[in-house]
Amino acid sequence: MTELKLRTLLITGSNRGIGFEFVQKFVNMQNPPQKIFATCRDPDAQQSQELKKLSEKHPNVTVIQLDTTDPVSVKASVAEVEKHLNGQGLDLLINNAGILTQNTLETQTPKDMMHVYNVNVVGPMLVTQAYYPLLKRSGIDSSGKSSIVTISSVLGSIQDLSSLLTRLPVISYRCSKAALNMLSRCHAECYKQDGIISIALHPGWVQTDMGGDEAPLSKETSVGGMMKIITSLNEKHSGTFVDWEGKTIPW
Amino acid sequence: MTELKLRTLLITGSNRGIGFEFVQKFVNMQNPPQKIFATCRDPDAQQSQELKKLSEKHPNVTVIQLDTTDPVSVKASVAEVEKHLNGQGLDLLINNAGILTQNTLETQTPKDMMHVYNVNVVGPMLVTQAYYPLLKRSGIDSSGKSSIVTISSVLGSIQDLSSLLTRLPVISYRCSKAALNMLSRCHAECYKQDGIISIALHPGWVQTDMGGDEAPLSKETSVGGMMKIITSLNEKHSGTFVDWEGKTIPW
Repeated sequence: MTELKLRTLLITGSNRGIGFEFVQKFVNMQNPPQKIFATCRDPDAQQSQELKKLSEKHPNVTVIQLDTTDPVSVKASVAEVEKHLNGQGLDLLINNAGILTQNTLETQTPKDMMHVYNVNVVGPMLVTQAYYPLLKRSGIDSSGKSSIVTISSVLGSIQDLSSLLTRLPVISYRCSKAALNMLSRCHAECYKQDGIISIALHPGWVQTDMGGDEAPLSKETSVGGMMKIITSLNEKHSGTFVDWEGKTIPW
Repeated sequence: MTELKLRTLLITGSNRGIGFEFVQKFVNMQNPPQKIFATCRDPDAQQSQELKKLSEKHPNVTVIQLDTTDPVSVKASVAEVEKHLNGQGLDLLINNAGILTQNTLETQTPKDMMHVYNVNVVGPMLVTQAYYPLLKRSGIDSSGKSSIVTISSVLGSIQDLSSLLTRLPVISYRCSKAALNMLSRCHAECYKQDGIISIALHPGWVQTDMGGDEAPLSKETSVGGMMKIITSLNEKHSGTFVDWEGKTIPW
């Protein structure tokens, strides 16, 4: 996939943090995509105003309501995106929306386990399932592949239970991201025949609301690194798990 | 841990399949445990009658009601087990209860994703959290370690997405078992200081209601192999993922 191929894309949770940074990076590309569907749960909320302003300046950015955990909302978003696409396929889906809650093995509750799994795994499952026909349409056309990029985390690496475990046990988050990595691998294998590439990315520990003040990495650096990976994806990358610098992370 | 150390143990989903086979193997050991807490969701159901009969013959087997996904039931079971233990700790917890549902990326529903995660991951989280004080009591006593054995599956291996993916996509099951492996690793790391060992086991493809008729492995062979592993566990095994023959499986 070359930069020129990136004509249409959709990103979830795009009103702030890493998601919003992605939208900014895409509009500022040398050959920006024709259609950027910037989705978020509540486009009218205070924290979506920056995204709205950006879309007013850039006609290729369309803000769309999408609650990834609500099948009705997901379905409605597909209908709206299809109208805008007017027969075109979707070249890139970035499953970015996710949450992190603080907990330990002792304080972890079933309710939190279920909630985090719903947002971090069931949401991406549902969104990808709904957008699969559009991704397939793009994947099988003559000009190249389409891609599913899943924003995962090194905290989902079962092998690399880091020294951070004591400080950041985040059990529900870790379990959800391990499951999400499995989903990303299943997408890679099952959709291979459709010309769809699937990759899981670790953005690093980034200065966002989720990452907190101590995070060492700026959004610019993290998303800049991931943009390089995304704009040069090919079949060889499908089914892998890499960080924002392209380094492989063990499952 | 030697056979002699295995004085008290609890197993979930013990009324049939692999769970029931475990109970039978334990009562038939040369030095059988003093107390085997054989738990299941509904001890009065038709499919629990074999277990009930076994417990009538063997006074060291106590059948206890335990719905692993119900916090009230989990708490009540701990109170009952504590009465029987009379100050003793728990040497071994086998998180065996689990479900598998058939689905593909196309047919997968959010409801099924959540249900399978609840039984296969949230249940073991809740049960282990509730029994942790009793495992710790056994783990720190002078005679050795205590253990948490998690019945996982090679279908939860993110690395080894086998050729079976087309035939057995079982997306909700695969995602849940990857998350369960993460939970098992977290138990191993976080409970190390308490003298508690945690291991994830793949029982093989076994002739049970879940495994179906085509399964190549008998319950006797599978559980016999896992018994060898369980009765010779030491710190080196903690945090690993092995099959019924002791072979390491990649995460």
